Amino acid sequence: MTGSTGRTKLNVGLIGLGRLGRIYARDLSTRIACTRLVAVADVDRPAVDEIAAEFDVPLGTTNPEDLINHPSVDAVVIVTPTSTHRAVTEAAAASGKAVFCEKPLSISLDEASAIKRAVDRAGIFFQMGFMRRFDRGFAAAKQRLGEGAIGDAVVFKSTSRDPFRPSVEYADPRSSGGMILDMGIHDFDLARWFMGEVATVQAIGGVLAYPELGAVGDIDNAIISLVFTSGRLGVVDLTRNGIYGYDIITELLGTQGTLRVGYIRETPLLIMTKGMVAHDTVPYFMERFAPAYTAQLENFAQNVLQGRQPPITVDDGIQALRIAVAATRAQHTGQRVEVTS
Amino acid sequence: MTGSTGRTKLNVGLIGLGRLGRIYARDLSTRIACTRLVAVADVDRPAVDEIAAEFDVPLGTTNPEDLINHPSVDAVVIVTPTSTHRAVTEAAAASGKAVFCEKPLSISLDEASAIKRAVDRAGIFFQMGFMRRFDRGFAAAKQRLGEGAIGDAVVFKSTSRDPFRPSVEYADPRSSGGMILDMGIHDFDLARWFMGEVATVQAIGGVLAYPELGAVGDIDNAIISLVFTSGRLGVVDLTRNGIYGYDIITELLGTQGTLRVGYIRETPLLIMTKGMVAHDTVPYFMERFAPAYTAQLENFAQNVLQGRQPPITVDDGIQALRIAVAATRAQHTGQRVEVTS
Amino acid sequence: MTGSTGRTKLNVGLIGLGRLGRIYARDLSTRIACTRLVAVADVDRPAVDEIAAEFDVPLGTTNPEDLINHPSVDAVVIVTPTSTHRAVTEAAAASGKAVFCEKPLSISLDEASAIKRAVDRAGIFFQMGFMRRFDRGFAAAKQRLGEGAIGDAVVFKSTSRDPFRPSVEYADPRSSGGMILDMGIHDFDLARWFMGEVATVQAIGGVLAYPELGAVGDIDNAIISLVFTSGRLGVVDLTRNGIYGYDIITELLGTQGTLRVGYIRETPLLIMTKGMVAHDTVPYFMERFAPAYTAQLENFAQNVLQGRQPPITVDDGIQALRIAVAATRAQHTGQRVEVTS
Amino acid sequence: MTGSTGRTKLNVGLIGLGRLGRIYARDLSTRIACTRLVAVADVDRPAVDEIAAEFDVPLGTTNPEDLINHPSVDAVVIVTPTSTHRAVTEAAAASGKAVFCEKPLSISLDEASAIKRAVDRAGIFFQMGFMRRFDRGFAAAKQRLGEGAIGDAVVFKSTSRDPFRPSVEYADPRSSGGMILDMGIHDFDLARWFMGEVATVQAIGGVLAYPELGAVGDIDNAIISLVFTSGRLGVVDLTRNGIYGYDIITELLGTQGTLRVGYIRETPLLIMTKGMVAHDTVPYFMERFAPAYTAQLENFAQNVLQGRQPPITVDDGIQALRIAVAATRAQHTGQRVEVTS
Repeated sequence: MTGSTGRTKLNVGLIGLGRLGRIYARDLSTRIACTRLVAVADVDRPAVDEIAAEFDVPLGTTNPEDLINHPSVDAVVIVTPTSTHRAVTEAAAASGKAVFCEKPLSISLDEASAIKRAVDRAGIFFQMGFMRRFDRGFAAAKQRLGEGAIGDAVVFKSTSRDPFRPSVEYADPRSSGGMILDMGIHDFDLARWFMGEVATVQAIGGVLAYPELGAVGDIDNAIISLVFTSGRLGVVDLTRNGIYGYDIITELLGTQGTLRVGYIRETPLLIMTKGMVAHDTVPYFMERFAPAYTAQLENFAQNVLQGRQPPITVDDGIQALRIAVAATRAQHTGQRVEVTS
Repeated sequence: MTGSTGRTKLNVGLIGLGRLGRIYARDLSTRIACTRLVAVADVDRPAVDEIAAEFDVPLGTTNPEDLINHPSVDAVVIVTPTSTHRAVTEAAAASGKAVFCEKPLSISLDEASAIKRAVDRAGIFFQMGFMRRFDRGFAAAKQRLGEGAIGDAVVFKSTSRDPFRPSVEYADPRSSGGMILDMGIHDFDLARWFMGEVATVQAIGGVLAYPELGAVGDIDNAIISLVFTSGRLGVVDLTRNGIYGYDIITELLGTQGTLRVGYIRETPLLIMTKGMVAHDTVPYFMERFAPAYTAQLENFAQNVLQGRQPPITVDDGIQALRIAVAATRAQHTGQRVEVTS
Repeated sequence: MTGSTGRTKLNVGLIGLGRLGRIYARDLSTRIACTRLVAVADVDRPAVDEIAAEFDVPLGTTNPEDLINHPSVDAVVIVTPTSTHRAVTEAAAASGKAVFCEKPLSISLDEASAIKRAVDRAGIFFQMGFMRRFDRGFAAAKQRLGEGAIGDAVVFKSTSRDPFRPSVEYADPRSSGGMILDMGIHDFDLARWFMGEVATVQAIGGVLAYPELGAVGDIDNAIISLVFTSGRLGVVDLTRNGIYGYDIITELLGTQGTLRVGYIRETPLLIMTKGMVAHDTVPYFMERFAPAYTAQLENFAQNVLQGRQPPITVDDGIQALRIAVAATRAQHTGQRVEVTS
Repeated sequence: MTGSTGRTKLNVGLIGLGRLGRIYARDLSTRIACTRLVAVADVDRPAVDEIAAEFDVPLGTTNPEDLINHPSVDAVVIVTPTSTHRAVTEAAAASGKAVFCEKPLSISLDEASAIKRAVDRAGIFFQMGFMRRFDRGFAAAKQRLGEGAIGDAVVFKSTSRDPFRPSVEYADPRSSGGMILDMGIHDFDLARWFMGEVATVQAIGGVLAYPELGAVGDIDNAIISLVFTSGRLGVVDLTRNGIYGYDIITELLGTQGTLRVGYIRETPLLIMTKGMVAHDTVPYFMERFAPAYTAQLENFAQNVLQGRQPPITVDDGIQALRIAVAATRAQHTGQRVEVTS
């Protein structure tokens, strides 16, 4: 798909009505001027009906294929469980529809390759979801880096902390891919975006806070070291027990200065009592990244409408996955692992 | 109007399509679930057409009376120049429509009394706009204060700084009421909200940064001291030359601690270069208070729909105006001035 | 006294061994290279003996005159109760000794004038103690202001908060001069230092936290507005119930930016627990200003040794007192009061 | 040495009058009440004379043995180049003198063992210098951790950044031990202090900012992952190009919260100009840790005087060195390395 479509509104079908899917339903129907939410699909019939009613969506279905193949749908936004990304994308590709797919692309490199083949064969527009790139802080850091504000960035540091553990079912590595993939995929994408490709990884991890996660084969804390192909260095640390709040920090240490993205204060209120100054923290990811999620969908829609190339491609999805898979193996084996490309 | 209306959507007519009016148009049509924007009015025909088209508003008119009297309009949101508040409100009262009116109610106490008489006579629902009360920081401070977090609040401090001066035309005290009223009305409302009624004021002011404001009879900096009827103390300082950014800070100093509301950082990016750590600032009021504006309109709509009393009444509008008028006189005379009620 | 003395060590006699006097004893004997503490005096004999022993001071006496007139004493540091400043300074003047005198010079303008006459008649070196001018933050603000970092400073704001009330005996206005003088004298000195002379003051105050202070005729909170002779504006707020910590903030609002001096964090430790980020506060004035006190005494000694003029003169002490006395009267009368000079 | 000496002053000989040695000379002679600086030694004769004169030190010599064996010297403080630690300590041990030795103990494990043998054989009091343990922030973190403020600490993170590179001569790994040892030894000591023994390390590093450091075989950035014997995790990152300022941060992530030690602001002045809020940074280690250095020497002296055991032993010095040596090897080989004990 090249060249502007000449249209000003993109008719979007949304597949997946979980927590993030519902946010996207609101974004697509009310917050983003250039989209129209024309169809929603989910295996959960009541959810379909509820969302369709709330946002006056003409088509609600429990069958993604119905949505994908409906002539009113120009583009498909996929927010389903990761294990379904391949099937849904292949169907969309077969139907020639533009696709936006949430991270991670897959937890399996084979499956990811299959997705890429389907996309390439059909020649459809495909954009990966990595919302941090659309956050004002990360975007400003990217711009300042490009302007030379800190010289060359030589060390990448990124911290992701969830304020509580996921359910044991969610955490099961057979569906989540394990914590390093589940949480770290964002940091690995940022690492590539800011610093280029990763050559090798090392990783340590453990079950330190929630033994029940160990029972299903997952861990709750990990530290991953990265060496970029340029020889530059990186480190990502992940935790499920960021008990104080949702804390996402990325730092680019340069030869002339440093850029640090992140904040942990939610309400603009300081409470000062005997010997203490205190403020609250960011509860969770929607409080931190809601505008970025919206901006990412709007960017997708505009790219499709104007015939622009996707800024985040299926290859970006695959490459972040490669790092995550390599890091997971490194954590299991204790060895340095190469990241192939 | 008492008791729930039984309806879930309020049909709103919006009068005034300036800077804030356009924000409200978007809020009422897309961001607030319980409102429908059914009519817009402004003296500027192209603005009416543009907004009506953008948000699919059925009725667009240059005559506020047409909007007010249209049967599809349940409630009127007034964002017109202050000098028109009386006429528009009187028309709405005559038509029995619920009214939301932006601050200040008026720059004249006589006119404000006339508005009150019209509202009382017609028995319409009338809610004043003071959006800071709906900001998360101020609301959290109010709650914490009520919970006893700082004991008794004994001193109220509030700072309002604009990042640049208004146009000379805007600043003219004949239309703006002068800087103390134009900027301070928010702080005076907060003073009453947190601390109760004000007994006396003293004020100093001057033309210190923008001589052109002096040429039309306005000032650009002022400091107003308040004594509450309880004997508690307050101070408000106002400036047009907050050149670094839009800075709004309110502090409640109590017998057991202090609450401080405010922030001046916009983007979650720290830039650290040789010997310096820096971040950006809040550009202006919409960046700071956009969610509060939305919350305030949603509150208005819910109050009307559910037959609740307005949390901010025409009397609140009048009383804040009384403080502002007294403070302006105190600044002119150098004398302590009593705030009647 | 003009021209360098050619000596490298100043022999100092210290009068007054209270809380601050003991700090000065240590400063003069161990921390400041160019001073030798050769004599101490206090009405409290055990205190004299203790300090003399701890710092190997040759002369310890309960009679200030003995110290002043002792030939080994080149210069006298006065940290006695304010009511004795006149007598001690007159004795030192009669003896031709250089004098450093802690703030406030006096609580009486008549007495202050008498001190000035004695100093002038004898032609002795006399330096007032206002340690904030020697604090790194205030000094840096002064320098940046001079460099034009914020354009013209047009508004001066200063906040002084004690973390607890003084003893009722200390607070008695007959000895302390009242809170506005006792606490505000520092802020008034800074106001002059940064902005020039003050023309008029207004003030409000009250007994809001500690009724027992009211019983002796003092207040515990005050807000003082200043108009400088240049027309610029200022405001000082003072409180005894800064319960959360010792908080000293001064701000210079300029036409091109703002300088803000102050900090309230003592230990470099953040404690982050569920939903909260907290740090400690500065306990009291010695934790905040210890280095400034030392720097101020060292400056005094170097000025005497090198025959330089005092940077803070008896006139500075008088002028800050004039503002404090006028502000106290303004608070009592509710009227605007002129500050004569 | 056991039991109190009954004395109140310790007579100290100071060996090494470089940058830190001069600070220690002042500490021992003026800032610490319980020490007397009775002798100084350095190979640099003018330095010896200068310091001896400045602090009235009776004995100044270029021969450390003269100082060690002088009967007036009770205890020896060693701040000489690391390569001399063994010889000086052995001489002090032979003479039965108490020893305080700056970090690192050595850059060679064999040499470190020899030091330990000498100390053990002679039964002298020996205290290692790791000043961070005496910093208020780190000490408060230790205390809060012990009080259970964050539950169990499960991840240790530590960052050390120098604001500029050392001289190429200093950096030469044959004398410095290489950057991981030279900078990281503090972080490794803290890791053990807070979390217990380290089992294995992995490390990556590179020459990313200063090619001239590569020319002598050193690196300028490194990231070291630690697995503690308890299975807990740690990560230390080191850089020579912390160009914005001296930045030392340690974090303990626990199951119930987090403790973060560090600050980067030096002067209590905020400068707010168009769109920007900025403050300065900590220049270098003495600005950050001067009080900790003093506290550490005072602790040493009190321990000797009162016959207490040293809080930081020769074994602590050896164990931190073992981690550093293992991490250096891990960085060279790319392999996980076990830390023997």
